[in-house]
This record gives sequence, structure tokens and C-alpha cells, in this order.
Amino acid sequence: MGHINHPSCNESRYRLQHDPRDKYKMIPRRKHNASSGSLPPPDDKHASNDYILSDSGSNEGWRAIIKRRLNRKTLHKRIPITAWLPKYNTEKAIGDLIAGITVGLTVIPQSLAYSNIAGLPPQYGLYGSFLGCFIYIFLGGCRAVPAGPTAIASLLTWQVAGGVIEKAILLNFLTGLIELLMGVLGLGFLINFVSGPVSSGFTSAVALMIATSQVKDLFAITVNGTTFLQQWISVFKNIHNASLWDPILGFICIALLLSMRKIGMLKLGEKCPDGPSTRQKVLTKCMWLLGTCRNAIVVILTGVLGYWFVNTKGSSPVRLMGAIPSGVPVPTVPPFSYVRSDNTTADFVDMVSELGSGLLVIPLIVLLEDIAICKAFSGGKTIDATQEMIALGLVNLGNSFMQAYPGGGSLARSVVSNGSGVKTTFNGLYTGLMVILALQFFTQYFEFIPKAALAAVIISAILFMVEYDVVKPMWRAKKLDLIPGLTTFVLCLALPIEMGILTGVVVNIVFILYHAARPKFSVEMLKTDHGVEYLMITPDRCLMFPSVDYVRRLVTKCATSNSVPVVIECTHIYSADYTAAKSIEQLTADFHARQQPLYFYNVKPSVCSIFEAVAKPEHFVVFYEDDELDRLLAADERLAPHKPPPPPLNA
Amino acid sequence: MGHINHPSCNESRYRLQHDPRDKYKMIPRRKHNASSGSLPPPDDKHASNDYILSDSGSNEGWRAIIKRRLNRKTLHKRIPITAWLPKYNTEKAIGDLIAGITVGLTVIPQSLAYSNIAGLPPQYGLYGSFLGCFIYIFLGGCRAVPAGPTAIASLLTWQVAGGVIEKAILLNFLTGLIELLMGVLGLGFLINFVSGPVSSGFTSAVALMIATSQVKDLFAITVNGTTFLQQWISVFKNIHNASLWDPILGFICIALLLSMRKIGMLKLGEKCPDGPSTRQKVLTKCMWLLGTCRNAIVVILTGVLGYWFVNTKGSSPVRLMGAIPSGVPVPTVPPFSYVRSDNTTADFVDMVSELGSGLLVIPLIVLLEDIAICKAFSGGKTIDATQEMIALGLVNLGNSFMQAYPGGGSLARSVVSNGSGVKTTFNGLYTGLMVILALQFFTQYFEFIPKAALAAVIISAILFMVEYDVVKPMWRAKKLDLIPGLTTFVLCLALPIEMGILTGVVVNIVFILYHAARPKFSVEMLKTDHGVEYLMITPDRCLMFPSVDYVRRLVTKCATSNSVPVVIECTHIYSADYTAAKSIEQLTADFHARQQPLYFYNVKPSVCSIFEAVAKPEHFVVFYEDDELDRLLAADERLAPHKPPPPPLNA
Repeated sequence: MGHINHPSCNESRYRLQHDPRDKYKMIPRRKHNASSGSLPPPDDKHASNDYILSDSGSNEGWRAIIKRRLNRKTLHKRIPITAWLPKYNTEKAIGDLIAGITVGLTVIPQSLAYSNIAGLPPQYGLYGSFLGCFIYIFLGGCRAVPAGPTAIASLLTWQVAGGVIEKAILLNFLTGLIELLMGVLGLGFLINFVSGPVSSGFTSAVALMIATSQVKDLFAITVNGTTFLQQWISVFKNIHNASLWDPILGFICIALLLSMRKIGMLKLGEKCPDGPSTRQKVLTKCMWLLGTCRNAIVVILTGVLGYWFVNTKGSSPVRLMGAIPSGVPVPTVPPFSYVRSDNTTADFVDMVSELGSGLLVIPLIVLLEDIAICKAFSGGKTIDATQEMIALGLVNLGNSFMQAYPGGGSLARSVVSNGSGVKTTFNGLYTGLMVILALQFFTQYFEFIPKAALAAVIISAILFMVEYDVVKPMWRAKKLDLIPGLTTFVLCLALPIEMGILTGVVVNIVFILYHAARPKFSVEMLKTDHGVEYLMITPDRCLMFPSVDYVRRLVTKCATSNSVPVVIECTHIYSADYTAAKSIEQLTADFHARQQPLYFYNVKPSVCSIFEAVAKPEHFVVFYEDDELDRLLAADERLAPHKPPPPPLNA
Repeated sequence: MGHINHPSCNESRYRLQHDPRDKYKMIPRRKHNASSGSLPPPDDKHASNDYILSDSGSNEGWRAIIKRRLNRKTLHKRIPITAWLPKYNTEKAIGDLIAGITVGLTVIPQSLAYSNIAGLPPQYGLYGSFLGCFIYIFLGGCRAVPAGPTAIASLLTWQVAGGVIEKAILLNFLTGLIELLMGVLGLGFLINFVSGPVSSGFTSAVALMIATSQVKDLFAITVNGTTFLQQWISVFKNIHNASLWDPILGFICIALLLSMRKIGMLKLGEKCPDGPSTRQKVLTKCMWLLGTCRNAIVVILTGVLGYWFVNTKGSSPVRLMGAIPSGVPVPTVPPFSYVRSDNTTADFVDMVSELGSGLLVIPLIVLLEDIAICKAFSGGKTIDATQEMIALGLVNLGNSFMQAYPGGGSLARSVVSNGSGVKTTFNGLYTGLMVILALQFFTQYFEFIPKAALAAVIISAILFMVEYDVVKPMWRAKKLDLIPGLTTFVLCLALPIEMGILTGVVVNIVFILYHAARPKFSVEMLKTDHGVEYLMITPDRCLMFPSVDYVRRLVTKCATSNSVPVVIECTHIYSADYTAAKSIEQLTADFHARQQPLYFYNVKPSVCSIFEAVAKPEHFVVFYEDDELDRLLAADERLAPHKPPPPPLNA
């Protein structure tokens, strides 16, 4: 290849039908002529120049940004209540009232049970179930998210804080702070790195862990160990100490709960030719209510039983919850130090280092769960993840002043809320008020609730969180995705749970890196119009540093085993970096040394400018039209000594 | 959108001009009809069906694999001497002899100096400079790699082993083992994750660190500290203790070395019209020899000076190297324990944990340097990275039995070797023999070499390793790539050097992940032949889990602000995963809920099957030809209630 007059990179000649812009921004109603759209794409007869896309405002001034951020739309976005409150009406109010009360009936037994998972006294679950609901009314973006304790957050709190109240409260405070920061700094994209399989593996493992943690209450035995395996070994060692009545009550409760759940899902008269009758509809609604309030029903019934035993027999054959301090907690600054069991004092730095990676994992998991709920109940609307982070951050911060441990949106309650016809986040008011009433007036009755009944409530809810049903579609869709999923599942059971999910994420990131490192190729032997054979090599993705050596090796291998001119088809190379450019430079120099022609076809202008900045211009030849290739080959053959010279061209 | 008779995924209908195969394997002379090539691509008039590409032999039996691995080609690949030795002749022998001796003259002073960088007695550098050369003759793939101590490996050895001989030798043993393992397990792709900018930043920082480490010998002062900054602070604190003659000798030597280097690069008579005359050629060759042997010349001259001072004046005004034990080391098993300075014994596990991340970094860096050299001197040939790993692994393993510390291919010596007309790896024999001769007979003379002269040798060589000249092309090519480069540079100077490069690699991986998480889009408003407006959304890369939420949000945003049918153009989506499929399922369900039609255009069959495994078939509609769109739209409009029904079709 010599110094021929080769065509250079040309914005208007790059032939990608729909040229992806560097930055994206919608301009809904304004016609915008994108520069690469000025030339109609050659083979799309429907193409128009009406790009509704422009470069993002990277050249926008600070003043414009501030102005843009302070308008009414932003207010509605950041304080969603300002958007829906003016349109609030009686119909919505009724929907919210019913949903709020139903959720309240669910959240009270759940809070008592979940605080047991977190290894904390039962009232701490209730402490986290009212203020957050009030905050979420103003800031929340999803009507079906009742903020409060969740099973996953409770288990993580237990693993991270180890049942130390001060640590759990500080963890909640810091979780809120980190969520808020992530929202403000736009770090929400981090949760995208938890893929579907990892998330499923994690949730399933957590469900099994939580069920395991309840076995001790179900059988009224002592269980040691932190991992899944250790706990089950301990269960089998101590099972002979089990009481008789606790498991009997527990299993009866489980059977009751599962039956009520089943009844709640029944729909009478669905298959009738004229649809359900009014009576059938009412009955269906009642059964639904029975299913929805099953936790409350079981807890109240067994609580009455416990009360009766204590008041008539003097003691109960099953273990009861015991005294719960009554009253709404006084707002207190979260504790920044605590006294360890060996009487040494742990200061703030000690506490933070003891919380460790939990400080990263808990905010992420809480957000992950919350955003999954928002997506499930969005009904096709866009979810503002940033707003959810800010809202949840403030919810957790607020709750930490009420001595609550970390929580968030719970899927179980969201299903109830959505099923009860929730209209806006206003339903949280009723839920919160019910919790306050419970704290103020009913705690003395809670002490009669049998522990086995609460364990039954948790177990019969949590088992449906084991996502065994994702395995089949995953197997059909992409078998490789089972690896991160199963890795996460097994490691979450075997290791501390936050290490399990982090490892799963890392395994999944390795997949992406492998993807980046090993592009796929097609290699074809083609002929030009003039009958000259050439090799067309088409990589299918961008050139980034992990892949460039592989690409160079592969192209060299193809080229040396077929000593014909080589064309690299660059349509799919949407991006490149300096390392890629260096490698392309070496490649062109290698071809030059072998006197084998090398051309680049249809290089995207932004990629071309990267290559041109490094490669020698006389080695780096780009063309955009098929017929240019013949001219280039003819010009090169005159220079190559090992081939007979073709007739001179008139070009 | 209802239950319309939509077209399904079809291998032969996917319109990617050059369909990248899932696996790649060249079949040089056999015509192979790829299944997707059976239909000529519609708009490439030169396309042929002669794919020289097939699926890789994943269905190949073990017997076939073993057979394939045991043939003559594999023998030549794995023991390269079997390939070139039968063709060895006198011309090659002379080239190798000259190159081997020249490299020998370079490696002896370098070895003495580099072992000082590693914080070890000078003879340990020589111990690593002969056996490796012999091993590399048989296994090495690049003629211009003289295996021996290198500046970078020496600095890393010092940072990791801290000048403890036993740890340095064990490190060499384990480095060899890990390199061998990486070669056998095909983990060589890991070095691809060290990008050009990171590599440049690392090399430059190492060069400055090495130069800094020599300041103490140049001024004959004591310098404390491990990081760059600490060392320079210590230098300025102690500079008043500097001796007079050491720096004078040192700077004279530096001046001499730089001048000789310059002279060696001169080429007389290059600009004469008839080229250089014979006398000019001879003179050029002599000057080149002067430049090449400059280190040996300076070391010998100053050594003679030291000898003269000691033998006539009784002592030397400059610090000398001191006694060096003579003789070739007896092969010994590497030490698996050592006695610490506080008289406690560190066993193998202690040593390994003390070596820490160095065990990962040193093999990688040694390989990185070696493969960079191979690439630079390959002359366009493919480099077998696996073979290099195996060769270097055995070189280091062998050297560790000679009590040497880690080493590899050194760029400085490779330049000399290549310039001396090396033909095969056989030149290593002469280099190795010279080192053995030096060890056996000349060590008693080495003790008179002034330390300042060796420091000058290192400094005047190492300063050219600072890659300030890559900043400009990097700036022109891709400014963003300066970030990992500068991060690595700064962190290598500020932190332990292996932490610096690891952080640089992580920063660079974050770039890839961001890339994977944020695909670019083009959005166009187009019209079908029948005049129906639709939105064409074209993502530019694959759908993997970090990006799917972003894609869904963006598509939803575009679709809700323009309530027209949406077409997602999937030509560039070369791959997808389960999380993407789940997101696509949600997206199709969302569109269905909004009664807005959504179609997928030109989906690659492998991607299509992933989506179809998860999405509801009646929601997931794919088409491959432009004219199908009108039919689909017409069918959907009949079902959508918010638009007037079009006239019935005759289809």
C-alpha cells in the first residue's frame, strides 16, 4: 500500500440507517435536523429527517440548568403530592381509606414478626411503621408502596447489626443518608448491576434463611449458628427438646393461613356464561377480605387463646411474646455509640466499621426491592428511580429518629394495597394512624400472641418468595444466566448474605467483561465488480481495550492464511478507545509490512476520528461506497510487487 | 394489540449483511455453506455463499480433540525449537552469535544494577540471567526476548518481598507456577484488561519510582520511605549528608551514557544522494556498537578507576559495590520458610500471605511486558500468548531453583538484540554462557564498580520509559482515556505500586460497565407506505442486564409522549440475556396495557429466541420486511378502540 489518494472519514457518507447520537434528549414537538440525517439513508424508503433527538445539553449554561430545575414540572417531580393533591376527590379518598386500613391490619402483625427476624424486641418493628408512611405521602412516587419493615431488610439488619438495637438504629440512619446521597448524586444506576438472575437467587436464598430463622419459634427450641447450614444442623441437634404445643399451634396456623390465602384467591362465578351474580360478587369480596386479613385474623385468634390460657390457667402451654412497652416513641437522635456486652464502648467509627459492607448492601437492596415493586405496579408509567431514592432515604432517616431499624417497600403489603383499590400515597396516613393507635392502646394485648403463631405468619408468607418458577424460563431463554443466579443462591446461603449477593454481582460483571473481550466475527470471501477476491471481516460490536488484541490476532490469522486484500466492515463498531486505536495502528503497520492491502469500510465518524488520531494516514484507508473498493485495489496493485500490474486507471 | 397472525422469528429472514457466528473457526480451503448464508443478502451485490467460517467444534468428541492436539503442528507450537532448528544455517548462527554476545554485554551490568532495585545483593541479578535464557531457546516464541531481570519486575519484587532473599526466590517460583497455570488454563485474556492508558501510566510511574530509588546511591545518602513522595522528602532531608565524589562520578556517567546513546543513534551519510559510503557504514556500525555497549563500557571504565583507587590509594573516594560471592549457584529447591529479623520463623502460608496481591500482579506484569515486546518485534506475525506464558512460567520456575528473583523479557535488551541482527532464540545460549563466565571468573572484579556508576546506568536508561509522548495522541483520540491513565500514574506513585495498577484497571473496567449500562439510541418519526406515522427507536448495542431498565425507561418515555405505534429496530442488538428478556416482556405488557402497538424489527434469531422464551407471544411481534409493518398496523387498528376502524384488508 502506498501513498494513494484515499477517501477520508466523512460524516455524511457513513451509512448507518439510524445513527445513534452521542447523547440523548427528547425534544417532543420541535423538528430537529440531525447532521447525519441530512442525507437520506440509501435503503430506507420511509426515512424522514424529522429526528426528535438532539445532543444533550452538555453545552448548556449553569443558569439554564438551574432555571430548568426550578420550574413547576420539577416541583411535581420532586414533591409528587403537589401533582396529585389538587386533583384529589371523594372516590380517591374512599379507595385510599380502605387500602390504608387493610394495609394497617397487615403491617401490625408483620412488624411484630419481622422485628423478631431482625433479632430486636417486637415494638421496634412498629416504631418503623408510621412516620415513614407519613413522609412517603409527600414524596413517594408509587401509590402502592407502604413504607415499613420488610422481611429482607430485617434479615440483613440481623446479619449486619447482630441484634444490637443501637447498631440497627444507626444502620437505619446511615441507610437513609446513603439512599439520599445516591438519589442526589444519581448513583441509582448501581442497582441496574443486580441482574434478574442474581436478584432471584438472592430473594430465594433470603426466603429460605428467613423460614429457617423461624424454626426455633415454631418448635420452641434454641438454634445457634448464622449460616443456613449451621442453623439446620443446630435444629436437628435440638429438635428433641421441642415442646409439644408450640409446633402443633404453629402448623395449625400455617394450615389456616395457607387455606385462607387459597380462599382469598377464589373467584366465584367467573366461569358462568353471564358473569358472576351480585351475591357471588359479594361473597368473592368477603373471601378476598378473609385472605387479605388472614395474618391479622390468625394473630388475633391465637392472641385471644393466649389471653384465655393466662387468665384462666395462670400460664400458657405455648410460648407467648411477653411484655411490650406501650406508647409512641419520643423522637430521639440516633445513637452514635453503644456499650458492648464486655462493657467497652464502641464509638461512631467502631460502629461504622462493624456495620461494614452492610452500609452499601442494605441501601441497595432496599432500593432494589422498592423499585421492583414500583415497576410491578406502575401500569406502564415511567418510574423515577431518583425520586424513589430520595423518598426512601428520607423515610429511613425519619424512622431512625423513631428508633426503627431499616425498612422500605414490602411486596406483600403492596399486593394488599393494590388489591384494596389504592389511589394515591395518601393511604399511608390511615396505615400510620392505625400503627400509632396500636402502639398507644393495644401493646398490652400483644404480649399474649404466641410466638409460634407469628412464626407461622412469616413462614407461610415467605415460602412464596422462593422463585423456583424463574428457573424454567431462564433455562429456555439463556442457560448461561443460571450460573450467576445459582451462584448467588448458594453463596447467600453459605456466606454472610451480603457477601453472597456481592459475589453474584461480580460473577455477572465478569460475563459483561467477557462479552466486551470476545466480540464475534463473520469472515467472508467476496468478489468486487472487477472480479478481485477480497476477505470481508465483520466484527459485531465496539472495539474496547479488552478485545483489541483478540481482534488483531484474529484478523492477522485470517489475513495470513488468505493472502488477498482484507476489508474490515465497521458498521457495528459503535465506539472505540485509545487502546483500540493503537491496535488498529499496529494492524495497519503489519499489513503494510506484509504488503497486503487493508481497508476499512463504513467507519462511524466518531470512531474514525479516534483511529485517525493514532494511525498513520497512509496506512489507514477508509471507504464508504462499494465501487470505491475497486479503485483502491487497482491503485494498490500497481504498488504491490508480487502481482502483475493492472492497466493504468484514468481516475 | 390482539391475537393477530404475526410473523415469527426466522433465521433466513434476519437481515444482517454479515451474520456474526456464535463461535469462530477458520476452515481455510473448504467451502462451507453457512445456514444464514443460504439466502443471498438483499443489498450486497458481491455477496457469495463461500463462508470460510463455521461453528466451533463444541460437538467435537474428546478423541478428536486429543488427536488434534497431538499432531506435528501442535509440537511446533508448543516447542518452537522443533520448528526452526531443522532450518538452522550458518547465516542464522552468525546473527545469533553477535546478538547473544551483545546482549550479554548489556545484561551483566543491568543484572548487577537491577538487583539493587530489588533490594538484593548484586549476584542475585546474575543468578537470574543464564538458565532462563537456555530454557527460552527451546520454548520461546519470540527471538528478541532475552529472559532475565527487568527494571519493573525488580521494583515490584522490592515492594512485595521487601528485600528478603527467601521471599524474592519463593515469589519467583510462584510467579512461574502462576504463569504456567495461566498458560495452561487459558487465563491469558486477563492481561487484555490492562489497557494502553493504564499500561502507560504504570510504566511511567515505575520509571520515576526506579529513578527515585537510585538517588540514594547517586548521592551516597540514606533514604527512607516506600512511596514516591516519602522518598523524595527523605532525599531533601538528607541531601546535606551527600558525599562530594559520588554525585560527581554519577553525573559524569549519566552525561557519558546519554551522549553515547545519542551517538549510537546517528547514521552517517543517510542524506547523501548515493547513500552512505562503505567508510560511513563502518563508522555508523562502530558508533552503534558504542551506543549499544555503553553500559558495559561505563561499568568497566569506572570499575578500573575503582580498582586503581583501592590498589594505589588503599581506599576509594566513591562507594564501591563490595565483595560479591563468586561461582555459579548450585541448583536448590526454593525456600518455603524463612527466619524473620525478630527470629520468628515464617512458614509457607505466612510467606504467601505476606506476598499477597503481588502474586497476582507480578505474573501479570511480567507477561504484559513480555507480550508487548513480542508484539513490537513480531513483524506482523501472530503472537501465541499461551505459549509465551508457558515459556516464561518455566523460565521463572527454572530461575527460582538458581535463587533468582522474578524477571522476564526486558524491552531495553530486546532493542539491542533486534538491532544486533538476532535470527532465532538460540542467541540466548551465548548470553547465558557469558553470564556463567562472569559469575565464575569476574565477580572479584565487580566489587570495584562504583555504586554511583550503576545508579547512572539505571537512571539514564529508565528516564526514557516515562511515556509522556502518549498523552498527545490520547488527547486527540479519546480524552476520556486520560482518566484511567492519569489515575494509574498518580496512584502508582502514591500507593504500593500493585494497588495503583489494580485501581487503574478497576477504573477502566468501570468505563466498560458504564458503556454496557448506557446504550445510545436514535429515535425517528417515520411514515409507512400507507402514510401511518410510527416511531422508530434504534438502540446501538446489545441488551444486557445493566442497561435494560434504562432502555425500558427511555422507550416508555418516547412512547408516552408520542402516542403512535413504536418500532424497535434490533439490527444492532447482537446479544441479550434473561434480564433483558424480562424487561422486554414488561415493556410489551406495558404497551399492551396502553393499547399502543409495539413491534420489533429485524431481530437476530438468537436474540429472538431469548425474548420469545419469556415474553407473551401475542405481545411480542417481530417483522423483517418493511411492507409487513402496514399489514400489522392495519390489523392492530381494527382492534384498538380509540381509532376509527380502517377499511378491511383483503390479506
